[in-house]
Amino acid sequence: MSHSEYEDSSEKLIPTQRSRIKRVPQRGQYERRAVYQILDEGLVCHVGFAIEQQPYVIPTAYGRVGDKLYIHGSPASRMLRSLQEGIEVCVTVTLLDGLVLARSAFHHSMNYRSVVVFGRATVVRDTQEKLEALQAFTEHVIPGRWEEVRPPSSQELQGTLVLFLPLAEASAKVRTGHPIDDETDYQLPIWAGVVPLHLAATEPVRDPRLPLEIPVPAYALNYSASRRC
Amino acid sequence: MSHSEYEDSSEKLIPTQRSRIKRVPQRGQYERRAVYQILDEGLVCHVGFAIEQQPYVIPTAYGRVGDKLYIHGSPASRMLRSLQEGIEVCVTVTLLDGLVLARSAFHHSMNYRSVVVFGRATVVRDTQEKLEALQAFTEHVIPGRWEEVRPPSSQELQGTLVLFLPLAEASAKVRTGHPIDDETDYQLPIWAGVVPLHLAATEPVRDPRLPLEIPVPAYALNYSASRRC
Repeated sequence: MSHSEYEDSSEKLIPTQRSRIKRVPQRGQYERRAVYQILDEGLVCHVGFAIEQQPYVIPTAYGRVGDKLYIHGSPASRMLRSLQEGIEVCVTVTLLDGLVLARSAFHHSMNYRSVVVFGRATVVRDTQEKLEALQAFTEHVIPGRWEEVRPPSSQELQGTLVLFLPLAEASAKVRTGHPIDDETDYQLPIWAGVVPLHLAATEPVRDPRLPLEIPVPAYALNYSASRRC
Repeated sequence: MSHSEYEDSSEKLIPTQRSRIKRVPQRGQYERRAVYQILDEGLVCHVGFAIEQQPYVIPTAYGRVGDKLYIHGSPASRMLRSLQEGIEVCVTVTLLDGLVLARSAFHHSMNYRSVVVFGRATVVRDTQEKLEALQAFTEHVIPGRWEEVRPPSSQELQGTLVLFLPLAEASAKVRTGHPIDDETDYQLPIWAGVVPLHLAATEPVRDPRLPLEIPVPAYALNYSASRRC
């Protein structure tokens, strides 16, 4: 999951009826680069699907390889069992960047970057692709980890259901910057601005069964720095 | 939105077919107190709904007053227009607490607390309840802010659509603690444990149009501390 693959690309995703940003359309972004940067920074996605008009929204981990978004889990998962039947899915990733404090209650807002992906999921049956997807999950969450851990056994691989969603119908929505107050409110003596927010890591906590001589790896110790978080 | 209201309460929500935790049921929690603590700590929820089997998952701010979860927005919002028709909704709030690094790739996990709420939304028409909901949005995000800002005008109040979902059919799912590795993997010389994660605030950024003599209020300056984040 190299970040460089899209850095030179400003290819645009074509907005569809469902992926086009309708509310505050100037916040919509359709470049693959913008969409992928948000997906690569997020750690949890929210998977939405409907069974007989009953919607479900389930948080889960994910990974991206090229133009595919992978999710995985136990074959017993209701969510995965439903998705593998080929029903429509909506996957949303949201990064919260700040609280926007306006002079009026009405204009309070949040700075955020979100991506919504629409499509149908496909089960990954090829063992090599499945293994690459599992590697992407781990490397997505904590780069450097995959090559240190015990890799999946063939039994574990078989016991994991991996699905992908094509990154074909997707869009990003982004709010940045300061509050936009009513012109007459700018004279009010009320503090206004942004409280920036980010996901931060603190010192890793050792598993109590870990022998003392095994040191904390750099990727865990410097997790915030490695993700610029 | 007093936190004390549920501290003495261990009343349980009755799990239904759709709110009962099926995967890893021991992670399920049904006490109102547990559910409300997660809702009160979260800042963004993901609202899921389906229009003709097409699911949508939209991130938005929310507030809680007693046993009601409020969301709001422009009357032009597709989401709010759909919800006010009384269709089924699923609202999910997820707090990411840590990365769980196991000795095997297979047993990697995340520590999290999530809440899923099912139900149908009702439009708030009573002006007083609407105002209280708007206060809850602001105070939920940044306690202390509401009494400093310009309150909503009657025009703004009219131009805001507020909906509530009853907190009647909901459940929490929580993972805490260290990795659970296969017994034979504990002897491997691989670091294992948890990288704790939390949402952190950094120094507030002043609106460039703000007069220099207006100081940063304490609730913004100490935002992390006030939320224990």
